[in-house]
Amino acid sequence: MPNPLPPLDTIPADLQCAADYLRRARHHLPPALHAQLTGASGQGRAQRANRHAWARLKLWPRLLTPMHNADTTLSLFGQSLPHPLLLAPVALQGLAHPEGEHATAAAAGAMGLPMVVSAMAGETLEQIATQNPGPKWFQLYLQAERAHTLDLLRRAEASGYQALVVTLDTPLQPPNLSAIRHGYRAPAQPCAVNLSAYPPPTPRPLRRGQSRILHGMLSEAPDWAELAWLRSQTRLPLLAKGVMHPHDAQRLRELGCDGLVVSNHGGRALDAAPASAEVLPALRQHLGTDYPLLVDGGIDGGEALFKALALGADAALVGRLQIAALAVAGALGVAHMLRLVSEELELTMALAGTPRLADIGPHTLYPASPPC
Amino acid sequence: MPNPLPPLDTIPADLQCAADYLRRARHHLPPALHAQLTGASGQGRAQRANRHAWARLKLWPRLLTPMHNADTTLSLFGQSLPHPLLLAPVALQGLAHPEGEHATAAAAGAMGLPMVVSAMAGETLEQIATQNPGPKWFQLYLQAERAHTLDLLRRAEASGYQALVVTLDTPLQPPNLSAIRHGYRAPAQPCAVNLSAYPPPTPRPLRRGQSRILHGMLSEAPDWAELAWLRSQTRLPLLAKGVMHPHDAQRLRELGCDGLVVSNHGGRALDAAPASAEVLPALRQHLGTDYPLLVDGGIDGGEALFKALALGADAALVGRLQIAALAVAGALGVAHMLRLVSEELELTMALAGTPRLADIGPHTLYPASPPC
Amino acid sequence: MPNPLPPLDTIPADLQCAADYLRRARHHLPPALHAQLTGASGQGRAQRANRHAWARLKLWPRLLTPMHNADTTLSLFGQSLPHPLLLAPVALQGLAHPEGEHATAAAAGAMGLPMVVSAMAGETLEQIATQNPGPKWFQLYLQAERAHTLDLLRRAEASGYQALVVTLDTPLQPPNLSAIRHGYRAPAQPCAVNLSAYPPPTPRPLRRGQSRILHGMLSEAPDWAELAWLRSQTRLPLLAKGVMHPHDAQRLRELGCDGLVVSNHGGRALDAAPASAEVLPALRQHLGTDYPLLVDGGIDGGEALFKALALGADAALVGRLQIAALAVAGALGVAHMLRLVSEELELTMALAGTPRLADIGPHTLYPASPPC
Amino acid sequence: MPNPLPPLDTIPADLQCAADYLRRARHHLPPALHAQLTGASGQGRAQRANRHAWARLKLWPRLLTPMHNADTTLSLFGQSLPHPLLLAPVALQGLAHPEGEHATAAAAGAMGLPMVVSAMAGETLEQIATQNPGPKWFQLYLQAERAHTLDLLRRAEASGYQALVVTLDTPLQPPNLSAIRHGYRAPAQPCAVNLSAYPPPTPRPLRRGQSRILHGMLSEAPDWAELAWLRSQTRLPLLAKGVMHPHDAQRLRELGCDGLVVSNHGGRALDAAPASAEVLPALRQHLGTDYPLLVDGGIDGGEALFKALALGADAALVGRLQIAALAVAGALGVAHMLRLVSEELELTMALAGTPRLADIGPHTLYPASPPC
Repeated sequence: MPNPLPPLDTIPADLQCAADYLRRARHHLPPALHAQLTGASGQGRAQRANRHAWARLKLWPRLLTPMHNADTTLSLFGQSLPHPLLLAPVALQGLAHPEGEHATAAAAGAMGLPMVVSAMAGETLEQIATQNPGPKWFQLYLQAERAHTLDLLRRAEASGYQALVVTLDTPLQPPNLSAIRHGYRAPAQPCAVNLSAYPPPTPRPLRRGQSRILHGMLSEAPDWAELAWLRSQTRLPLLAKGVMHPHDAQRLRELGCDGLVVSNHGGRALDAAPASAEVLPALRQHLGTDYPLLVDGGIDGGEALFKALALGADAALVGRLQIAALAVAGALGVAHMLRLVSEELELTMALAGTPRLADIGPHTLYPASPPC
Repeated sequence: MPNPLPPLDTIPADLQCAADYLRRARHHLPPALHAQLTGASGQGRAQRANRHAWARLKLWPRLLTPMHNADTTLSLFGQSLPHPLLLAPVALQGLAHPEGEHATAAAAGAMGLPMVVSAMAGETLEQIATQNPGPKWFQLYLQAERAHTLDLLRRAEASGYQALVVTLDTPLQPPNLSAIRHGYRAPAQPCAVNLSAYPPPTPRPLRRGQSRILHGMLSEAPDWAELAWLRSQTRLPLLAKGVMHPHDAQRLRELGCDGLVVSNHGGRALDAAPASAEVLPALRQHLGTDYPLLVDGGIDGGEALFKALALGADAALVGRLQIAALAVAGALGVAHMLRLVSEELELTMALAGTPRLADIGPHTLYPASPPC
Repeated sequence: MPNPLPPLDTIPADLQCAADYLRRARHHLPPALHAQLTGASGQGRAQRANRHAWARLKLWPRLLTPMHNADTTLSLFGQSLPHPLLLAPVALQGLAHPEGEHATAAAAGAMGLPMVVSAMAGETLEQIATQNPGPKWFQLYLQAERAHTLDLLRRAEASGYQALVVTLDTPLQPPNLSAIRHGYRAPAQPCAVNLSAYPPPTPRPLRRGQSRILHGMLSEAPDWAELAWLRSQTRLPLLAKGVMHPHDAQRLRELGCDGLVVSNHGGRALDAAPASAEVLPALRQHLGTDYPLLVDGGIDGGEALFKALALGADAALVGRLQIAALAVAGALGVAHMLRLVSEELELTMALAGTPRLADIGPHTLYPASPPC
Repeated sequence: MPNPLPPLDTIPADLQCAADYLRRARHHLPPALHAQLTGASGQGRAQRANRHAWARLKLWPRLLTPMHNADTTLSLFGQSLPHPLLLAPVALQGLAHPEGEHATAAAAGAMGLPMVVSAMAGETLEQIATQNPGPKWFQLYLQAERAHTLDLLRRAEASGYQALVVTLDTPLQPPNLSAIRHGYRAPAQPCAVNLSAYPPPTPRPLRRGQSRILHGMLSEAPDWAELAWLRSQTRLPLLAKGVMHPHDAQRLRELGCDGLVVSNHGGRALDAAPASAEVLPALRQHLGTDYPLLVDGGIDGGEALFKALALGADAALVGRLQIAALAVAGALGVAHMLRLVSEELELTMALAGTPRLADIGPHTLYPASPPC
């Protein structure tokens, strides 16, 4: 196994499509770290399901459509985005590249696309905000103590973040077995500096017969009341992330969430979960056409992004593509990847005869309804 | 081919999920013995069908479910089990580890889970009973002579076994072709000590045109009357193992069986059999919600165990996992494997939003009804 | 590539199931000859379809069925067969083993099973008849001249053949591309001695624009009138081989055929053909329960034979198994293979709870109707 | 990687079926050029879909059909073709063989089959016309300026071309990523000599926020009005190529197109497109039985050609087969390939019991309607 290559300063000629970053990233990361950053939980089934779900969808080619009114912009919570594309929250980006979140924020700003800053970022949310001239979103988990959650929320508001994403799908995160088998050990740095002021509560001792998992780790897991409280504490748009089941979606909307992110955490939560692409059409149908619905999980380029829109998403987020591009070529890589995804979307729009985002719908899929 | 490794005294870091024991076992067993202990009959189709049937089932992730009342215990024939998990009957465990059934019984007792002691055990059922402080179950075949069956039964009762499992699916066991091709020869020890007092009847000479199989080996195969007789001889809970067809299930219940084990003998009986997971939902539907229904075949961890419950089982048994863990690390391995399966179940319950076993049902599967 | 092994005089320990002969045959034949004898036409799709169609069918295990009345015999055209199994017509068996048809006939006679002697045999049909004490069947093609067909027919009648099989599916046989690529060249010996007295007619010169195939090779291809004439010339039971379409089956019965062999010529005719197993159920349904229906194509052991009966066949023929067993161990190999297939059938009958052939039907398949 | 072999002067013995040319071509081309000529766009999904769609279709073998009236000729736009087979437009054939379009035209003429000369040919359409004694077709794209399109059209008319094919599916062609990764660079020669007099318009500068693709490259893409204008300019039969969606097909017919070529550009346009074989049956059903409908994409021999006819095509075009045969053996290779495809079609017709093209229809497919 040769040493990993250093990150690049220029874009090499073999990076021709966004998915090439996924292929190349392994050359720039030690195997254990590569497994940690791009692997998944369990046996990797949900991760593979994500990828295959996009790949197997087919689109109708259409002919001679006038494209002079072509437009890829969308308005989301009052923000105007040039393409329906966001950077998903990814923790501790300094693991992938020395410039970490700094680089990603710069690339996002340059492209005018939102970076959803992770609460587990390796830099302070305040620093990242200053580095990003573009739209600013912040992701958080409900902390065990409301005071901690509230402090985090107020800091995000004070730093100019314009939307909040609360991740709900991992009250407990299953281990990344591949990374463990490769011997991965988390280094001391970077660490989750934004949470260092909020130490977790002292675990209560378990009674005999109680479970380390169910009665230990999960004893402080949030429930619906916690989320309702969070909703009451901010006027920022609040999106719930990790939604898959229509009943959860319904309840989240009723609770006051302004939008949802359909996600199985990129295959890093419940390994038996369906692909986010599989559940997306029913969620859109359940929620109606106007409710903001984003999706992530396995988006590997502009063709998958188009398909996400066809299945009912307003926009999609990229996580692995982001961290792979960061590892390969830092800010330049992330910006180039975002451009490739955007242009692949445009090319697909041209060949599918859909000049505007609103033209993209289930009828662009072959056959008209998504195969099950 | 290097020599097999000796069994371990400690759990190595690469054993992170229960299925890892299946992967590692081959390093601790000579190839022929590995094929004998973990292989299957025929072309291995039923064994693969088992594995794939669990793997392809998907589950709904659910959000924000309160888990403070989480509970994995169940009551089965008056016994309280901490998890819905049993050790399937496996013959001659001394082949896998020098401590054989002794080690398995100790692990089962430590975890409070039932070991279903095989009539083909390499140690006496009386010895095993003394080594196991936990719930005790005994498995038997109907012997050619009722006196032999009865003696075995009385010994099990006298030794404190609390439930009986009669295996019905192998009036004749097809050969394990892979083991034969690897040159496997059964050693003189361990042998089925519990049956040494019951010599098989002298085979009747075949008439011209009669079949070695149909009229020879099967001439003493039990029928419904034999099972009805067995039922009449004991008050212990009696479960029939190897059930797949709804009509057989119905008749077994009418005959007085207290429960069934859905099983294709782990792929070691009829190679063309469907997966036990495939037939389980219809059996549960046929038998109603209250009749005890267990399942084995391809359960490789807590996620598969959760799925078994979702399809209608009350609990599941592990056979290959058991023998693999025994080969890798003896009693410690079996105990560790049982803990891994249990915790994987708990993790799945947490992410699927099902705090109690009763919450697990077909609605937790994606899509709601199991795919065919 | 080492030299091929000579045929064996004893059965080695690694030959444990009938399909093992298919695996082992390549060690006993030069690659080009192996491709010629066991390969197929075109891209090998029909051959693979045959194999997969049997493999993917599943059977219900059944319990506690009394087997004392077990019986595998059947009566076919007044002949009593110990098992529903025949040796398919295979040309020039001297290619596979020096003793050629002599060896196969001896094995068939020893097992009491019919060998369907090929008109393309390398020995005279008269010689083969004397070597075979068992039931005798003869296969032929309609020759370009009726006098030739009639002579062949009369010779078969005179030699004591008791049933005729006329093969209809290859008016033109597509090339075995794999054998050609391996450089296969037909040797001078063995040759089709039974046809040496019937030289093919001088080809008519083609007119401009006429096809070498359609107007040349096929100019003497038989049609329905030819078959009706053949039917009128003999009182022997006449079976048509190569039948797949229900309309052809219907017309053949109406024309007076006494039975049909469902077959795609083992994948050596139309490469795009479905598997014979795929079309068998509809043919049985179309023809009713009493009309003799045989099948070949991909039968690789007793489990597939059982499935053939479950789908509606009265018996099945083995071609590749036969030539593979012949190549491996001559008469001994063929006899051993026939015994393995028979015993595998018996084992499957025992585990599927079907003591008699009449008990085997669609209800023994899981699910009850064959999957499409 | 050894140097590529030179093109052959004779047909080697291992070229036994048309698809063998696809296998052999890689030995006669440098890897990058092989990728460029035989690869596809994106991830190659549409190309694989094409191939698999033909391969998985199955046909009914039929028996004893009289073949004396066998006929493979068809009449297309007043031209009589010996087989329902055309050479698809392929650009810059000098890349594959030094004799380029010259060789292909000679082969087409020798076989009496139409070569659809590409507007991107490396030789002038006038030269190619003189080299081809057979039926002449010409393919073009709508140019940015009508004067250019008209000039091209008039030249084709003047050179004796008898049918026009306008390709509509690639207003923008996605890159061949495999060729780029192999380092492919287009050489200076051959170049598209037929278009050298029609320089593309100077690109308009993009405004801020405008897309290089949607507002740049596509700014001159043709629309329906352009095609209507083209239709009005010629009395030659006009076929539209690249049609997949029934609504486009309907509109093209209404606009005056004389026929359609169902095509996804051989997988070189929208990578998410379905196979042309998948959409063909619905298009035929939509358009009725009399409207000329051709198809290309993945046709790798006469069996696929038969299937194309069974799904409703009047004829099929071969592109990759053509360029592969050209690379392997020049004009001789193309002629040999055309003969192989034709004879494979004839063989399939014989075994499927369809003496005339009109006998080939959906009823020849197993099962009767194409599987989805």
